[in-house]
Amino acid sequence: MASRKVIIGVMGPGTTAAHKESTGAHESLAMELGRQIASHGWLLLTGGRNIGVMDAACRGAKSAGGTTIGILPGPQTSDVSDAVDIPIITGLGSARNNINALSSAVLVAVGMGPGTASEVALALKAQKPVILLGATPEAEKFFASLDAGLVHTAADVEAAITHIKAVLPAQ
Amino acid sequence: MASRKVIIGVMGPGTTAAHKESTGAHESLAMELGRQIASHGWLLLTGGRNIGVMDAACRGAKSAGGTTIGILPGPQTSDVSDAVDIPIITGLGSARNNINALSSAVLVAVGMGPGTASEVALALKAQKPVILLGATPEAEKFFASLDAGLVHTAADVEAAITHIKAVLPAQ
Amino acid sequence: MASRKVIIGVMGPGTTAAHKESTGAHESLAMELGRQIASHGWLLLTGGRNIGVMDAACRGAKSAGGTTIGILPGPQTSDVSDAVDIPIITGLGSARNNINALSSAVLVAVGMGPGTASEVALALKAQKPVILLGATPEAEKFFASLDAGLVHTAADVEAAITHIKAVLPAQ
Amino acid sequence: MASRKVIIGVMGPGTTAAHKESTGAHESLAMELGRQIASHGWLLLTGGRNIGVMDAACRGAKSAGGTTIGILPGPQTSDVSDAVDIPIITGLGSARNNINALSSAVLVAVGMGPGTASEVALALKAQKPVILLGATPEAEKFFASLDAGLVHTAADVEAAITHIKAVLPAQ
Repeated sequence: MASRKVIIGVMGPGTTAAHKESTGAHESLAMELGRQIASHGWLLLTGGRNIGVMDAACRGAKSAGGTTIGILPGPQTSDVSDAVDIPIITGLGSARNNINALSSAVLVAVGMGPGTASEVALALKAQKPVILLGATPEAEKFFASLDAGLVHTAADVEAAITHIKAVLPAQ
Repeated sequence: MASRKVIIGVMGPGTTAAHKESTGAHESLAMELGRQIASHGWLLLTGGRNIGVMDAACRGAKSAGGTTIGILPGPQTSDVSDAVDIPIITGLGSARNNINALSSAVLVAVGMGPGTASEVALALKAQKPVILLGATPEAEKFFASLDAGLVHTAADVEAAITHIKAVLPAQ
Repeated sequence: MASRKVIIGVMGPGTTAAHKESTGAHESLAMELGRQIASHGWLLLTGGRNIGVMDAACRGAKSAGGTTIGILPGPQTSDVSDAVDIPIITGLGSARNNINALSSAVLVAVGMGPGTASEVALALKAQKPVILLGATPEAEKFFASLDAGLVHTAADVEAAITHIKAVLPAQ
Repeated sequence: MASRKVIIGVMGPGTTAAHKESTGAHESLAMELGRQIASHGWLLLTGGRNIGVMDAACRGAKSAGGTTIGILPGPQTSDVSDAVDIPIITGLGSARNNINALSSAVLVAVGMGPGTASEVALALKAQKPVILLGATPEAEKFFASLDAGLVHTAADVEAAITHIKAVLPAQ
């Protein structure tokens, strides 16, 4: 369909009572990334919860008038980010991570944690381009070793946007 | 979030090479239902494929300027309806039917078949209101026997819309 | 593989604090059915929880020295029936119902409720034979209307076993 | 239940027409690992297909009289390993990887690839102990950086078995 908008996935750690995986720096990056994704006319897809990178990316996209899709792990809407326009309630737990990978034309990981690592790996399994932003050196080396052709490392949000444009299929 | 739009699910048979489960009459009902859902400002969610009731409902919604979400069973976009704005690629096969049920505030079944029956049953399991439109008498009696309080039968599209308004939570 | 054992699925309502869907009569049927499945050398597959029909069927199978597989909806083992030998922890909620349908050579529904109805419908969608035992007349008429060739009604456990033998592929 | 057997997951690459991810060395390790898992009285769980590490591990377990569980990604039994006793047919594609993680008391990864990486990450997300056998240095460093307390590196099959014993809950 000529007019269907491209979906860009932004993945990254949330936080838990036991463990705060995302940092303020990651959330700032995610917010700016979400803002720029919306400015380019792309749809933003995240894990949809009201915490961490996923929440920040959605808030950024909304600040630029974008549309946000959240793929929620739980069976109801109680923990959906206020900045999600379209909550998809999967009830699948972490099995929903594969939907994030399959539904995104490009996946951008901001920061890293076990859940985010699974989403990057599932995206590579599905032959999707992945961009790492604010990842650790260990993550960059490992994912490049899995599939150097699909994995790109971005130094900042501008570089991530440039990478997205480069890997999108011509419209 | 005060401004988040309500999602209405429309489920119904597709067609296969071996068996055409949906009829022209069901597709006409689905198209008019989709049109009216869009006119009321609700989002339309379907199974997303380019056949049968799901395709017709999406085309109806697009004709009225609505937004359409498709929850696809397969792992890629090859069979997505052209009238789907937001394709969610699950790769789950029929397990995706539970996402349709959980993500919809109200589920409307147009016609009936094994897949549609599973979606109605899963919606009732999740305590969601269901509206049957163009169902068989056997379907109406069975689902009413499962949960009479949640199952409504509509004689036509107008009645289905009236039922949707009645069961939506006050905004 | 010549020696792989046939898997027979037994589905049926559990109970909840709010609503007791299974009855003592259904649980007695399920226990005897599980016992006979084990006696015939088949593996028993259920939803695996420690309540209702699924628990009773597993206890029956264990009483006859059988092996029991439980496909659990939750993400951990806290509600697994003691009579399940092999707990498969899906974390998928009701989306796991499709695994029950796909993994069973034949599905027997004992009693009826929304979850059980979804399993029967998903089995028919996957072209699996289904046997209804202790179902309501409304359920029998509805599922026969969906696919008369695949749906069988059994008056008692003996009849269910006879039906299973009739529909199993020749070994 | 006192007598329920422990389930040990063995994950690793398969092969495809396009790309042979597993090597003969990995398959030899997997076969010996499967054999020893069976010898210890544990159940073996794999991805169940008739290729690569998953097939080799199952064949090893069968050679020692063990019981093997295969969690298949596809919707039917056509690609099940002959050495799988209990095929669970999920139809979920790679979303089934989370079932592998949740259902195993301990996960052993033999070799590495995108699918295996997702299984290791999902196991860590679920707080399961993981043992890496024959992994790349990049994989060992990355997963240790995600959760050093849960990730163990084994130099050979004997070391993997020793690690499994160390991390299993006392019976």
